[in-house]
Amino acid sequence: MAIIVHHLNDSRSQRVLWLLEEMGIDYEIKHYSRTAQGTAPKELLDVHPTGKSPLITDTTKNKVVAESGAIVDYLIRHYGEGRFVPADPERIDDDVYFNHFAEGSLMPTLVMKLVFSMIPAKMPFFVRPIGNAIVSNVNSAFLDPDLKRKSDFVADELVKKCDGGNGWFAGGDKDGNPTSADFQMAFPLEAALSGRISNLPASIKTYVDKVHARPAFKRGLEKGGPYNFIPMRDQPGGLEFLHVLPASEVRNQSVCAPVNALPPRIHDANALDWCQRQIPQMPMGANVSRASLRTSADTAGAMRSLRC
Amino acid sequence: MAIIVHHLNDSRSQRVLWLLEEMGIDYEIKHYSRTAQGTAPKELLDVHPTGKSPLITDTTKNKVVAESGAIVDYLIRHYGEGRFVPADPERIDDDVYFNHFAEGSLMPTLVMKLVFSMIPAKMPFFVRPIGNAIVSNVNSAFLDPDLKRKSDFVADELVKKCDGGNGWFAGGDKDGNPTSADFQMAFPLEAALSGRISNLPASIKTYVDKVHARPAFKRGLEKGGPYNFIPMRDQPGGLEFLHVLPASEVRNQSVCAPVNALPPRIHDANALDWCQRQIPQMPMGANVSRASLRTSADTAGAMRSLRC
Repeated sequence: MAIIVHHLNDSRSQRVLWLLEEMGIDYEIKHYSRTAQGTAPKELLDVHPTGKSPLITDTTKNKVVAESGAIVDYLIRHYGEGRFVPADPERIDDDVYFNHFAEGSLMPTLVMKLVFSMIPAKMPFFVRPIGNAIVSNVNSAFLDPDLKRKSDFVADELVKKCDGGNGWFAGGDKDGNPTSADFQMAFPLEAALSGRISNLPASIKTYVDKVHARPAFKRGLEKGGPYNFIPMRDQPGGLEFLHVLPASEVRNQSVCAPVNALPPRIHDANALDWCQRQIPQMPMGANVSRASLRTSADTAGAMRSLRC
Repeated sequence: MAIIVHHLNDSRSQRVLWLLEEMGIDYEIKHYSRTAQGTAPKELLDVHPTGKSPLITDTTKNKVVAESGAIVDYLIRHYGEGRFVPADPERIDDDVYFNHFAEGSLMPTLVMKLVFSMIPAKMPFFVRPIGNAIVSNVNSAFLDPDLKRKSDFVADELVKKCDGGNGWFAGGDKDGNPTSADFQMAFPLEAALSGRISNLPASIKTYVDKVHARPAFKRGLEKGGPYNFIPMRDQPGGLEFLHVLPASEVRNQSVCAPVNALPPRIHDANALDWCQRQIPQMPMGANVSRASLRTSADTAGAMRSLRC
């Protein structure tokens, strides 16, 4: 086995599984679960001193590679055999740009919005209005305008250069496959669609749907396990779960938590009551949000959180 | 003129000036100043829809390139003539890795620490203790351990692979010049050294001193204008300013603000008093810190903030 993927649930490493499936090369997954705080577990520190996912081990070269953008570049450069690089040499600049933009610009703002959203829940209830005011100020003055500018830019690029979202960020390779820009961009756009930004332009949804429809993406999803950034109904085994808990029960609540912070057989209990009771005690780092849900896709996505 | 650098003061675009000076190619600087809130001015939106610096315009190809990592890659790939790429092909993986790590991992945590540090100053004084408690909790639970892990990792890499900080991150090019990893990493390490992290390992200081000693870096610094991430005494014109205001006057205070938020002739007034009065009103996005200074380098660095 040449490549081992150190795969953390609900993380950037899902993009590495997608790439490896597109490449059709042999790999092994080593699964890691987030802590109760939602952070990466200490075991990842044994693989690389930064302790983050994704990480891959290339056993042939006896090498550990970290950092999404570097992993995607590494795999394509060493094992791509000329595929997954733009067919049009003029688009190489776009490929490099979006590879960097995904983690250097778009993700940092999305992560900051997530971290700020968790502050009020960590405060004693009598000062929580102050926490809400801080979050509201930072969002309106800084994060929301920044995210709107970036998502509008991405959507415009998809319209202008990528057939309204039906094409690839750098035009695809000689066989019409995605290139490194796509493997990098899909994750922040999934994150944005799964609740971080509202009213996203249609081209972004079109693009992410195109990614999710790839047979290679579906295979990666099945091997990676439940994934918080895709509606439950579109995940392996998801439809079965939807039958256990009617969508109406979660229609007006969205509660997200690390899988291992949930009780083992949540669908035997009153799931909503349980989750509501958990919110004040949710640990720092957990993904917590309360909002009215508007679409059936969102509702299905929320149910992901109730899975055991 | 083939390349125009849209240069924002005290920003990541200083690294682009350094690279262009190392390359020895002709370029023009268009200067932009931060707003009173410390953010990029609206004029940058006319250059690129993300409105961030650095940006370059390649007039020969009629192209605007954004995102530090992509700009560094673009310039070296199109105009490097084989220089600034690792002499040892085995080090290309390191070059790509650190190019991504700088903006994809290290900078986001540094920026988040900066944003959190500004929260208390934006709150009414009677709830400021709550703001301080929030910042303290986020720092101790999340940001500080993460920054320590990342800076220890960087310092260890410098010790193991880069002659204790005297070499380059990917071993340098065939002439001993830095490669893209270095142009990317220098900025977050300068930021870390200028007050974001305390007690950094010696190899990081050794490395940044080596960068600052490059004649090309010095030329870029002179053309870019005052730069918040280098001690004042090491900047063009800095020694003259040090004579105006004795170091003893700022020994126990560090106040940083965007240049355009300072009064025009600060050294004619009581600088410290002025800065202390400004702290509660410092706008969101400004770089504010109060701390005891321990070294003469730090003292000189603090004086940078008092410059007009």
